[in-house]
Amino acid sequence: MTAVLDSLQQGRQAVQPALRAALDRLDPTSRSIAYYHFGWTDLDGNPASAGGGKAVRPALALLSAEAAGAQPSAGLPGAVAVELVHNFSLLHDDLMDGDTERRHRPTVWAVHGAASAILTGDAMLSLAQEVLLDGDGPGAIAAARLLSEAVNELIRGQVLDVAFEQRNDVTLDECLDMAAGKTGALLSASSAIGAVLAGAPRETVDALAGFGADLGLAFQLVDDLLGIWGEPATTGKPVYSDLRARKKSLPVTYSITHGGAIGRELAEWLAAPEEPGEDGVRHAADLIEQAGGRRWALDEAHRRMAAGQQKLTDAEVPDRVREDLLSLARFIVTRES
Amino acid sequence: MTAVLDSLQQGRQAVQPALRAALDRLDPTSRSIAYYHFGWTDLDGNPASAGGGKAVRPALALLSAEAAGAQPSAGLPGAVAVELVHNFSLLHDDLMDGDTERRHRPTVWAVHGAASAILTGDAMLSLAQEVLLDGDGPGAIAAARLLSEAVNELIRGQVLDVAFEQRNDVTLDECLDMAAGKTGALLSASSAIGAVLAGAPRETVDALAGFGADLGLAFQLVDDLLGIWGEPATTGKPVYSDLRARKKSLPVTYSITHGGAIGRELAEWLAAPEEPGEDGVRHAADLIEQAGGRRWALDEAHRRMAAGQQKLTDAEVPDRVREDLLSLARFIVTRES
Repeated sequence: MTAVLDSLQQGRQAVQPALRAALDRLDPTSRSIAYYHFGWTDLDGNPASAGGGKAVRPALALLSAEAAGAQPSAGLPGAVAVELVHNFSLLHDDLMDGDTERRHRPTVWAVHGAASAILTGDAMLSLAQEVLLDGDGPGAIAAARLLSEAVNELIRGQVLDVAFEQRNDVTLDECLDMAAGKTGALLSASSAIGAVLAGAPRETVDALAGFGADLGLAFQLVDDLLGIWGEPATTGKPVYSDLRARKKSLPVTYSITHGGAIGRELAEWLAAPEEPGEDGVRHAADLIEQAGGRRWALDEAHRRMAAGQQKLTDAEVPDRVREDLLSLARFIVTRES
Repeated sequence: MTAVLDSLQQGRQAVQPALRAALDRLDPTSRSIAYYHFGWTDLDGNPASAGGGKAVRPALALLSAEAAGAQPSAGLPGAVAVELVHNFSLLHDDLMDGDTERRHRPTVWAVHGAASAILTGDAMLSLAQEVLLDGDGPGAIAAARLLSEAVNELIRGQVLDVAFEQRNDVTLDECLDMAAGKTGALLSASSAIGAVLAGAPRETVDALAGFGADLGLAFQLVDDLLGIWGEPATTGKPVYSDLRARKKSLPVTYSITHGGAIGRELAEWLAAPEEPGEDGVRHAADLIEQAGGRRWALDEAHRRMAAGQQKLTDAEVPDRVREDLLSLARFIVTRES
């Protein structure tokens, strides 16, 4: 795992100056809010190093350029762009979800108000495209197209997520489709954008994009498991937190739709109007286990990881780069460090 | 004026199918919200023709292609893109400003909630770039860059507008700069994007962009005058509405910064903590008049229109197209029909 942390560290060091340069094009207000969001300044605007996330998407983008035989630097505009899009979505999601804390710090909307979160997010989304369009290689416009499609998918996934909260008849396929949009699309684009910028052939790009989409699904499945049975120390959330919020996550949806009588009991529990008690959430977790939802999610995550690995092998991605991509993928999915 | 209305009508007829085709790429939820926002459906999703605005930006984009000697259709992707960006900003602005009504119908956030307004706006912004990047001409990437910069300026202007509400020391230059971003940038891009798509020389593009920026300032000046002395029948707002909201608009800021003792009296009135009464707003309007703010705004609007006209003449835009652009500009500024 040390190698992965080194590679993430190197990625952050390579990307941060370019990310800062991009953000410095914003108006002073949006820039200072962005600096706070990335953990580079504290609430008073003083320098800080709160750690603005692990920056796994930029690391994927740089490796993606190497997968196409180019220098990591060829993927740099893509690395900056995917990190901007990821953080655009965090700014807007935190507001929509009413989340007041991220990375152990108050969220932007909670500190600066809704308008600041909306506008800074909008500015980052627009800036992401600008960074790519500033490039003059033949890959620039293709990379901008790739990112545009990923953003549309990301938004589509988020729209479905919001809509599913109001529904009791979501199928497993719908839930997988939502996760592919919300989580898979940007990890897929991150894994392919460096190769696109490097002018890689279609098959290489498709393989990398497919690997990233598989990684996204595997990550979401494990994230959903952690949301139910996760260690608070690892996840930063109390155990059973997703059940307390009655979130129709992938293991829950599998259990409801494939768990027969146990699944129906779980569905009734989810639809009950009263606030769930501590015994209730523990019982619901047991139902998911009995209905096979936990087992399925773990097996499906392994299947996705294996499928992603196979795509890299088929595309003849150089051994060293493939190993780095797989180590990073395992790190992202398991969150061990 | 009939010619302008004909040209707007033709513009809408040319652009609407392409706009619909673009919106049809969105997920069904965002698409149906967009249809409602554009006035194509009612709250129940049934077909309607509520009129989704005058579509002056698409009309400018089509004329802009003609200004470069191309067919209007060369500007079509640009026309769709600027209309998408305009409506992205309306969706987010209505939410941030808490406005519950637009074009005599409930706003999207008021009907569908904040998350829908944020996500549908995000989707339109991303879609605008996608529409341009779908083009394969050499102008496509230049048009995408132009739009990106305009979006950044638009957001910068909106950020300044929000920030100015908390300040009592805004200068006239700052206020003009804010209007150039919030109102001028997208009208400027609309006036140039067709020429960019048609591969026009730099001087033509710059002249058209400059004309659009002048038009934007003139529009904002007149809009600010209407916000104080406008006829409710024309503006849809009660007389003195901007004074009631104590908005530091351009004529107000001019009066405060250039009106000597009268300006200081106006500044004190604006800073007073109590809710302004009917006599108070009438008195404030008189102060603006006495301080020369009304006269200045009207004169400045005329100067901007003349400057814009001169740019079109210098750039040798064909007579017929120049006349059409100027008629459209006068229509936008005066809102007479």
